[in-house]
This record gives sequence, structure tokens and C-alpha cells, in this order.
Amino acid sequence: MKIMGVDPGLATLGYAFIEKNNNSFKLINYDVIKTEAEMSDVSRLKIIYNKLQELIEKNQPACMAVEELFFNKNVKTAIRVGQARGVILLAGADAGIDVSEYTPLQVKQAVVGYGRASKHQVQHMVKALLNLESIPEPDDAADALAVAICHGHNYGFNKRWGDQI
Amino acid sequence: MKIMGVDPGLATLGYAFIEKNNNSFKLINYDVIKTEAEMSDVSRLKIIYNKLQELIEKNQPACMAVEELFFNKNVKTAIRVGQARGVILLAGADAGIDVSEYTPLQVKQAVVGYGRASKHQVQHMVKALLNLESIPEPDDAADALAVAICHGHNYGFNKRWGDQI
Repeated sequence: MKIMGVDPGLATLGYAFIEKNNNSFKLINYDVIKTEAEMSDVSRLKIIYNKLQELIEKNQPACMAVEELFFNKNVKTAIRVGQARGVILLAGADAGIDVSEYTPLQVKQAVVGYGRASKHQVQHMVKALLNLESIPEPDDAADALAVAICHGHNYGFNKRWGDQI
Repeated sequence: MKIMGVDPGLATLGYAFIEKNNNSFKLINYDVIKTEAEMSDVSRLKIIYNKLQELIEKNQPACMAVEELFFNKNVKTAIRVGQARGVILLAGADAGIDVSEYTPLQVKQAVVGYGRASKHQVQHMVKALLNLESIPEPDDAADALAVAICHGHNYGFNKRWGDQI
């Protein structure tokens, strides 16, 4: 099963594609989508949506896993990041693939086995689980890999839908 | 110039189409898009996006005006409403029409001439400016009409782009 992971953001969005076979994971690719602060939000949202459409079309994942964001900043910032999340979720829905959302706690629990794990511990486990030579960079791409792995684990444990995916 | 106004929301989104000729406005139509709380956010976003695409295709507005939302509720709510705003802005951008955003203060100033006007004062002016027999309902649709009128006024005052729209 090919899984797409997304770490949402407006300025920098991390994405990753991995393959899960039985209990092992294989890296396909990962990178970030960046948009310039000088552009209007409308233009930035369109760039994100179009790029995700293109990536889904090219990589044909079976499902998309998106990290939920919690932060204590002001409500105005939350709305702008929410707008980016909206077009990310829509890109998955429009492509007709399953879209799942995971909290940072769920991602840490799934990847490290411990919900209060540090960012470095998560990155180390991502490297180990995917047999990489070094920790993936930048952080947003590593986070996208982590949420994809999280979905792979959860899918394995909660195989409610049989093998049709 | 045909203007589409949108009052963003996830459960209830108001929309309106008006025509501006010289300094007068004419109502075309207005209504709300509702999505059920039992559905996933992903499904609700997809319904909103598809319905807006259909409305833009059918009504062919020259531009879209979207109200900005400010509220003091929690950040989690702000992210979810932001997600809905994201797909609204994308629907306009994807259709290739100009998308403008206005704060509630700007809308009140443009429609009533007074930034601290009450909701009732705004609705009364919407009714008067569009020569309606009664105040448009529900509130979300009236708000969408108000932001469309606001854009019509601002477009008139700041006609930076000449008459090409």
C-alpha cells in the first residue's frame, strides 16, 4: 500500500510517499512545497492545491495521512494555516483517496511508541524504519514521513476494511 | 459587473450574486450551503468546494468577495473554519476570478457608512440598496449580500484596473 504523508503549512508544507508491505516500510520520495510570503493567500493556496494534485497524480497513493496542528498562537494565524489544511484535505478528497488525520501525539506514539518523544527521537526512528543513511531534511519532510508511517501502523492494527485498500 | 459574495462557514455558508451597473445594485440570487455535522470535515469541504464550483460555473461572476472572520473562540475551531475558507478562496482562484477579502468593519463601513453599525442596520441597508421587499434570510445569506455590496462600493472607489472587469 502506497501512503502519502503531509505536514501542513502555508509557507512550507512537507510531503512524503512511502510503501508499506507487510510490516516493512520503503521510502519512495519526500520533499517540501514552499510558497512566498509576498504572494496573496489565494495564490499560495492555489499553488499548494495544484502541486498536491500533480504529486497525487504522479505517485498514485492509496491514501493520505495529514498531521493535525495544535498551537497557541493567535486565532488569525490559526485561520490562515487552517486555510492551507483545507486545500490539502480537498486535494485528497478530490483524488478519491482515503484521508486520515493524526494528532502529533498519535504520530509519536505510532513511530516511537511514546507520545512525549522528542522531535529528534521521531526523526531517528523514521531513519531507522525506512533504512535511510541520514535523518531526512528539512524537518517538515521528516514530519510528513512520520505521519505516513503512523498511518501505516494504524492501518495494520485497525484493519477494519479488510484488504481492499 | 456581476459580483459573488461569500460569508464563510463550515455548517452554513452564505452566498449571493448581485449585478452592479454604474452606482446601482441589482439582486440576482442568494442562498446558503449547509453541511451536516455528522459528516467528516473532508466530506464537508468537498461538498462546499463542489457546490461553489457549480454556482460560479452557472452564474459566471467577474469576481468574488469573501468576508474575513474574527472570533474569540478556541484555536481548534478557528482551524476548522479556516479550512472551509481555504476551499472557498480556492474555488474562486480555480475559476480564474478575482478574489477579495473584507473585514466585518469594512463591510459595515461600505454598506452603512459606519463601522460599528448593528447587524440589523446592515440588513436594512442591504434591503434598501437592492430594492427588496423584506430583509433577506437567513442571516448568512444577508451577510453574503453585504460583502458583495461592499466589494461593489470599493471597486467603484478604487477603480485601479480601469474598466476591463
